[in-house]
Amino acid sequence: MSVATGIGTDELAGRRERLWALVADRAPTGLVVFDQSYVQYLTRFSFLATERPVAYVESEAGETAAFVPEFEVARVEAETTFDRVASYPEYPGEEHPMRILAGVLAEMGIAGTIAADQDGYPGILGYAGPALSEVSEAAIVPLAPALESLMARKSHAEVELVRESARWCGHAHRLLQEHTRPGVTEAQAGLRAGCEATLAMLDALGPGYDGQLSSTDGASAGYRGQIGERSAWAHAISHNIEFRPGDVLVSETSAPVWGYNAELERAMIVGAPTDEMRRHFEHMRAAQQVAFAALRPGVTCAAVDRAVLSYFSGQDILGTWSQHTGHAIGLRNHEAPFLDVGDETVIEPGMVFTIEPGVYVAGLGGFRHSDTVAVTPDGIEVLTDYPSDIESLTIPA
Amino acid sequence: MSVATGIGTDELAGRRERLWALVADRAPTGLVVFDQSYVQYLTRFSFLATERPVAYVESEAGETAAFVPEFEVARVEAETTFDRVASYPEYPGEEHPMRILAGVLAEMGIAGTIAADQDGYPGILGYAGPALSEVSEAAIVPLAPALESLMARKSHAEVELVRESARWCGHAHRLLQEHTRPGVTEAQAGLRAGCEATLAMLDALGPGYDGQLSSTDGASAGYRGQIGERSAWAHAISHNIEFRPGDVLVSETSAPVWGYNAELERAMIVGAPTDEMRRHFEHMRAAQQVAFAALRPGVTCAAVDRAVLSYFSGQDILGTWSQHTGHAIGLRNHEAPFLDVGDETVIEPGMVFTIEPGVYVAGLGGFRHSDTVAVTPDGIEVLTDYPSDIESLTIPA
Repeated sequence: MSVATGIGTDELAGRRERLWALVADRAPTGLVVFDQSYVQYLTRFSFLATERPVAYVESEAGETAAFVPEFEVARVEAETTFDRVASYPEYPGEEHPMRILAGVLAEMGIAGTIAADQDGYPGILGYAGPALSEVSEAAIVPLAPALESLMARKSHAEVELVRESARWCGHAHRLLQEHTRPGVTEAQAGLRAGCEATLAMLDALGPGYDGQLSSTDGASAGYRGQIGERSAWAHAISHNIEFRPGDVLVSETSAPVWGYNAELERAMIVGAPTDEMRRHFEHMRAAQQVAFAALRPGVTCAAVDRAVLSYFSGQDILGTWSQHTGHAIGLRNHEAPFLDVGDETVIEPGMVFTIEPGVYVAGLGGFRHSDTVAVTPDGIEVLTDYPSDIESLTIPA
Repeated sequence: MSVATGIGTDELAGRRERLWALVADRAPTGLVVFDQSYVQYLTRFSFLATERPVAYVESEAGETAAFVPEFEVARVEAETTFDRVASYPEYPGEEHPMRILAGVLAEMGIAGTIAADQDGYPGILGYAGPALSEVSEAAIVPLAPALESLMARKSHAEVELVRESARWCGHAHRLLQEHTRPGVTEAQAGLRAGCEATLAMLDALGPGYDGQLSSTDGASAGYRGQIGERSAWAHAISHNIEFRPGDVLVSETSAPVWGYNAELERAMIVGAPTDEMRRHFEHMRAAQQVAFAALRPGVTCAAVDRAVLSYFSGQDILGTWSQHTGHAIGLRNHEAPFLDVGDETVIEPGMVFTIEPGVYVAGLGGFRHSDTVAVTPDGIEVLTDYPSDIESLTIPA
């Protein structure tokens, strides 16, 4: 595996083997997977999820199949190596695609009990149709928990792709910081940083890198409205705001590499920070250190979040607490498990998390750094590499 | 309503009134809506859909409520006018958000029978939780068919937003065409067109325009890998391809205005088209004219698609057919109903469709224009305005 070519076929086969092992006690005769991220995880096949159903099917005998609209067949045959490419003319068509899928399952010897991520294709973009259990007359064994559990434990190759993503998040962030100046708008700074970072990323990854769902996918960076007082709202919405001296900012970046994501966010200040800003900023950094120190194999996700909450309560700043410590990340920019008091998942080597406890002050702003870390046999490795001190994160005004 | 301010509160109230009327025979005591587009349609409230559940709730007595994570409360109170903003501390938290939602429903007098778009929050980004019927002990009446039916019939204000979107799709497309030259890559052309068009759009719509989910949302244009032979694949994937003389191209554009989308796509040729290219191109234009002529109130979606198929079979070019004639479009870039032989929906004034029958030739390329049309009392109005003749769509080489 190199970052230029993505996850290899042996690793994909290993994932599917482990998935079968996880559902073996229910003895399904086949797997049916509809969710785009799950299909990508198991097969590397990427597609636009629309109202036209797509499914990955695998029989107990090991036969693999893609089920796609007819117009996707030529691309699937050219770009993938499924044993079978089954198709339907169109959606909704004269015969509903789910009924055609039932015929494909029968041909592949899949009947009686089927392990599926959902009982039918979800209602994407106005899609409507019968349940899988209805058309196949099979009992459905839930597959999503097993898939989530596999996806939470990353391989070496997956961690390397997240690391490469972190590099490009860093590059995009440096450009964003450079283009953020009083009088500039968030759209101007973000668009410029995203264009420049994407062109650099595509150039560096070379012609072997592809599989993007849009021509302009690559690295992005921006603020999503987290500017000034609005940065106190952890999920603000853009308003094309102009930066002003005195603004507290919370950035965000994204740079999927073969679909794998890191997360890098920084609190920044436009102009000289006030003493109050410094105090909140340093509490946020200290809370992040508490999480870094607590996170290691064998402890629970809840224990990490409780350690951070203890810091907030010990410092008497619970009023500025707003969100749990972080979440797993990989093929999806948020995924399970969550570093949250309600998640008792035991942490294992290979898990990858964001660490992003924030300090949110109504009327002033939000202070949040997000870094991405991989769990190692004896602790963590921080995959994002970007300055976190207030001097480095002060924008000249 | 102006395009700068979006859908007004009276229209939103009217939508909710019609929704209640559509489910009145089942006598629900309240509505619960989880899907982001449905919530936006009913309330204009926009949010990032993540693993943290969000719901819109309305009681029979007319009380409206947003159910959000605690950190969203300040923004929701500042930016919306719900009667009640109910919240939960975090997901998954010590008490599951769905159980807290059950308490909110009880407080609002919603019990027994509930109309909901889904029986619980969908499994977004690793979310897991109990069904709504489980936590509320209520019978669930499906609400999605009623919502889809309302959303399919656009008001004057909605058509005006789609028209404004069409203008910006046109602007982005002119820039894309200008930046597409031999030796340039699809990422270069698309990024440049998207940046320039987005800045122009935000500038023109002015400071009253907001509600974007990312700082860099605006207009976009590109090819998504539909370049040269790959343009014969109706849904290709980007490979950062360099344009070469002789390439057939199929473009795509997007420019949501307050969430409303038009669709504008064009087949283009790099350098002088061959006679074969001209033949396919003109068949595609003729098929589009067949659809324009067939589409009017009172005919079925299926009849429009059958008219186009008749053109293909009459010209003996069924081998180049690949996709149905088009789809409805609005708050989602694809939505029901579909101009497909399997969709017997009767067309009504106010429906908005894409018209995009394509001619796809393996080894050569794809020929597809997509235009967006609104159904009027006596026919259609084409909302997209961009040249469709081959001379205008030939790129100098």
